[in-house]
Amino acid sequence: MNLIVDHSIVSTAVSDLQKVCATKSVIPILSGIKIEAEKGAIKLTGGNSEMFMEKMIPIEGNGEIIEEGSVVVVAKYLNELLKKFPGKIQLNASEKSTVIIKSGDITTKLNRLHVEQYPKLPAFQSSYNVKMTLGDLKEAIKQTLFAVSKSDSKPVLTGVQFVFQKGKLILTATDSNRLSRKMLQVHSEHMESIVVPDYCLNEILNIKEADASVIEIAHDRNLIAIKVNNTTLLSVLIEGHYPDIRALIPNEFISRVKVNRKKLLAGVERACIFSGSSKHNDVNLRLCDGDSIKITSISTEIGMIEEYQKVHTEGETNFSITLDGRYLIEALKGIKEEEITMQFNGNMKPIVLKSENNPSYLQLISPRRAH
Amino acid sequence: MNLIVDHSIVSTAVSDLQKVCATKSVIPILSGIKIEAEKGAIKLTGGNSEMFMEKMIPIEGNGEIIEEGSVVVVAKYLNELLKKFPGKIQLNASEKSTVIIKSGDITTKLNRLHVEQYPKLPAFQSSYNVKMTLGDLKEAIKQTLFAVSKSDSKPVLTGVQFVFQKGKLILTATDSNRLSRKMLQVHSEHMESIVVPDYCLNEILNIKEADASVIEIAHDRNLIAIKVNNTTLLSVLIEGHYPDIRALIPNEFISRVKVNRKKLLAGVERACIFSGSSKHNDVNLRLCDGDSIKITSISTEIGMIEEYQKVHTEGETNFSITLDGRYLIEALKGIKEEEITMQFNGNMKPIVLKSENNPSYLQLISPRRAH
Repeated sequence: MNLIVDHSIVSTAVSDLQKVCATKSVIPILSGIKIEAEKGAIKLTGGNSEMFMEKMIPIEGNGEIIEEGSVVVVAKYLNELLKKFPGKIQLNASEKSTVIIKSGDITTKLNRLHVEQYPKLPAFQSSYNVKMTLGDLKEAIKQTLFAVSKSDSKPVLTGVQFVFQKGKLILTATDSNRLSRKMLQVHSEHMESIVVPDYCLNEILNIKEADASVIEIAHDRNLIAIKVNNTTLLSVLIEGHYPDIRALIPNEFISRVKVNRKKLLAGVERACIFSGSSKHNDVNLRLCDGDSIKITSISTEIGMIEEYQKVHTEGETNFSITLDGRYLIEALKGIKEEEITMQFNGNMKPIVLKSENNPSYLQLISPRRAH
Repeated sequence: MNLIVDHSIVSTAVSDLQKVCATKSVIPILSGIKIEAEKGAIKLTGGNSEMFMEKMIPIEGNGEIIEEGSVVVVAKYLNELLKKFPGKIQLNASEKSTVIIKSGDITTKLNRLHVEQYPKLPAFQSSYNVKMTLGDLKEAIKQTLFAVSKSDSKPVLTGVQFVFQKGKLILTATDSNRLSRKMLQVHSEHMESIVVPDYCLNEILNIKEADASVIEIAHDRNLIAIKVNNTTLLSVLIEGHYPDIRALIPNEFISRVKVNRKKLLAGVERACIFSGSSKHNDVNLRLCDGDSIKITSISTEIGMIEEYQKVHTEGETNFSITLDGRYLIEALKGIKEEEITMQFNGNMKPIVLKSENNPSYLQLISPRRAH
């Protein structure tokens, strides 16, 4: 391999890939980035045992491929070096055990890993049959990902469920105590359900292409492939039976409260201060007579807070419910609209949060305990 | 105590003080901020066993002191709460064990600590007899602090030496392998030498007043007091004999090289990548014939780098010296001027870096070992 390329183009790609590459793995080759030069393009591949990323860089106008070929070098060192290189660089694999990287009066040699040991990516039969914009998918991921389970006791709950239906995609995340569900209009033809792991979704959030870029998704039983412009992400899926959440979401409520999202968020954030170092952030909400809601939190260690907010209430009042304030904060931050509706079924039943103007997004939070 | 004040003014001050307050101390009262309301001002005090900070907030125009008095509340909770409070707040200590903090429909109570247990700050006889601008002192601290010893084996070297002379102040920091020295024009009358601990200097760097603000310094044998506008910082000094560094700085050199600071910095940063995970960053500099310098770093694990830079050389050439690249990077970042002079006495003697245009700042780095 021997090629000349503008350092800045390769540098950006290597920096993205390096984040996916294994740093401490029993398979040393996974700490490397595979550089392949052929047919007028450089293909860069990096990954770990669960996920791979591939970037195609067309070389035309940015440089020249003098000799085709492929090498693997340690991602970390290649990344650090390219970040600090000026101008055009030449990558030359004429020596057996190193790659010579040159720019002007600077000559460096990076040790090569054994290219023949680099894993062959799994064959993937399925075609890219789901399309949407990157911006829409990122938004939907941000609105659900926070609600996945942080515990490994039920692995399937550590991912976000993607349910593909004709013309739409429903994302669901739950840790058994709260749930977030988002519906997206997409180009999709088939009915299927998969569970995408959190690290893959975080990687999608990291993709630096424009929000208007089209993202294409393909999947089979075990794998998902995501393609945006010149970047392809390949990840394993989480296996297992995702709980049927439709039965969990109530359709009828005894009370309905319209609140200003930002004002309630500020109040709950204040109340959470009084949870101090305790694991849970018990915040009590009381629906008072006369269109007001009372937010209370009490700690023997710190003190207490009591705050009234004017709201619009329909249905029963004069009951209170204790929720984990942290869940409530994350739910309120997930909603984009300013006026939201909270729906109650008494002090022992989950509440549902949504915006009347946007039925595509819904959140549910179970009470901590009765008061 | 009972007072009304604009939350934003107290909030900023509490946020600054909280950083100084002890978080985990055997003396629980040190986790608190003392609030004293008297004579038209609020005085806030916070600290740990080595350092205290005091802020005076004149209340006129921002609120009202209804009843004088003093309380102590936990800094962390007060800070978090004030950050999330809107508008004017009322602090009322009418209850025995709490402070009631109110704003509109929000009522909170913070538990009080025992105000009578708050330590009395040490009596301080000396007057403020050194004056300079905050900006000048901050700059001088930034140019020296990085060179202090990170090891506790010689405690006196973990601080920066301040030598006061008539009309000037000399700051020196060294960890025995490198040294940084900065001279400042100040208003000062007396001859004295003290060693200021790193945490106190970091706190000065954190002071958010304008660079043009006048900073006043007073000290006695054990303590230093620093005053800028309404903020006073009181810190212990490091005791012990600071080494006489004048003998260490050579006056004569066998070679002198003029280099571009940014270009050399970029070269040394590239070379340091090849130190990988090793503790030292061995970088070799060779003074070549024909006005060039060669920067080399070799690692069996990673690879190697070799870079030539055009320079202007006077004196002997054809020798090389190995330095810790990290020291060289920090030294080059400390200098503000773009053209710098490196002075050499062969491969086994320290090098001296300075700018010809600014004799007030000098750095010295000892070689790692002979090559």
